[in-house]
Amino acid sequence: MAGYFITFEGGEGAGKTSILQTISTRLIQEGYNVIITREPGGIEIAEKIRQIILDPDHTAMDGRTEALLYAAARRQHLVEKVIPALNEGKIVLCDRFIDSSLAYQGYARGLGVEEVFQINEFAIEGCMPDMTLFFDIEPEEGLKRIAANKDREQNRLDLEQIDFHNKVHEAYKQLLNRFPDRIYRIDASPQMEVVAASAYNKVISFMDEKA
Amino acid sequence: MAGYFITFEGGEGAGKTSILQTISTRLIQEGYNVIITREPGGIEIAEKIRQIILDPDHTAMDGRTEALLYAAARRQHLVEKVIPALNEGKIVLCDRFIDSSLAYQGYARGLGVEEVFQINEFAIEGCMPDMTLFFDIEPEEGLKRIAANKDREQNRLDLEQIDFHNKVHEAYKQLLNRFPDRIYRIDASPQMEVVAASAYNKVISFMDEKA
Ligand SMILES: Nc1ncnc2c1ncn2[C@@H]1O[C@H](COP(=O)(O)OP(=O)(O)O)[C@@H](O)[C@H]1O
Ligand SMILES: Nc1ncnc2c1ncn2[C@@H]1O[C@H](COP(=O)(O)OP(=O)(O)O)[C@@H](O)[C@H]1O
Ligand SMILES: [Mg+2]
Ligand SMILES: [Mg+2]
Repeated sequence: MAGYFITFEGGEGAGKTSILQTISTRLIQEGYNVIITREPGGIEIAEKIRQIILDPDHTAMDGRTEALLYAAARRQHLVEKVIPALNEGKIVLCDRFIDSSLAYQGYARGLGVEEVFQINEFAIEGCMPDMTLFFDIEPEEGLKRIAANKDREQNRLDLEQIDFHNKVHEAYKQLLNRFPDRIYRIDASPQMEVVAASAYNKVISFMDEKA
Repeated sequence: MAGYFITFEGGEGAGKTSILQTISTRLIQEGYNVIITREPGGIEIAEKIRQIILDPDHTAMDGRTEALLYAAARRQHLVEKVIPALNEGKIVLCDRFIDSSLAYQGYARGLGVEEVFQINEFAIEGCMPDMTLFFDIEPEEGLKRIAANKDREQNRLDLEQIDFHNKVHEAYKQLLNRFPDRIYRIDASPQMEVVAASAYNKVISFMDEKA
């Protein structure tokens, strides 16, 4: 495929969504052909699958059912939106992808990273991201950013939440070790302009290398 | 688990649904505690997943998305209906299960038996059937039965259809070789009473062996 498939990963409040936006704007200014997306990305079948996952009436939803549904929505979004864009030579910036399932469901929710990886490998059929930016932030810091943004009290972040987000963070660090050629760590703790600049530079130098 | 999980497999018109009914009635007469089911089996989440699969508007549905959705529906039906019944010591007779996905999607639709097996292993998490009855019929014969039943012309079965159903049949024979301890072949070509009797005897002798 001609384009580049670049995914943005990390815990809550790391800055993924904000920085994806900034980088996209800069790349477009530089004349690159860019699309930004996130699952389910407006793909009808994927949206309907998400509705089943998110329906609050579905209290009986099993963790593995959910993981299979996420993989199904991922597949359809990939086939209908990401791959066609890559085939047109576009840079696809995607807000979360396979590593989120590995970190959240495989590791933090305890379904098993290897097993969740297998069903996602079936879903993506070799279409792994060309490059993944892992926005590394201490979970407590990330959650504070979100809380600040929503004018909520910081102490709503109870211990259980922190524990869960620490697991997610631990999982991302393990993924970084496992996929050193694909995943790049970005220190997400400085102010946003600094984080955005280092992420942008990584993307540019990655593309220069490949060109 | 205390009960027995028995699945009915084979091509169209082999007699699965009819004979499942007959066997269930006989077992209940003999005092066994039996439930009969088929996916999605009235399980709300599984029914909703099926609706997505079967929606005729979803022409963009990818084969792998579909396989993941089937696995998700299977998981939920298993967790909400089959496993609780087994835990109550019931005999669960299920019309089609994992082998149908392997034969239809893995083999005949060409997604790959091993790959479809892996996502289904994730879905069933070790809860394989205790016993599977494979109703073995020549595809052309099975399709004739269905056609006869629906007062349709036999020649509506075009070559492509026969070819597909031959693949499914071939796949079931391979599964029989692969799982000789689990899958029992039933010759489904004689008249229904004969087929039902041999299937019933297999079930009884299987349970006697295990008891
Ligand atoms: N480097 C940063 N420093 C301070 N605040 C940040 C930084 N990056 C993002 N934020 C703020 O944190 C909040 C969450 O950012 P967001 O981009 O939505 O993160 P994510 O998508 O990773 O959850 C937003 O209010 C955003 O403005
Ligand atoms: N052994 C048999 N001989 C003749 N007809 C049969 C036999 N078994 C089933 N049928 C008929 O074939 C048709 C399909 O049977 P069914 O039980 O629905 O098969 P399946 O569920 O395997 O597709 C029905 O009309 C049924 O009455
Ligand atoms: Mg975000
Ligand atoms: Mg049937």
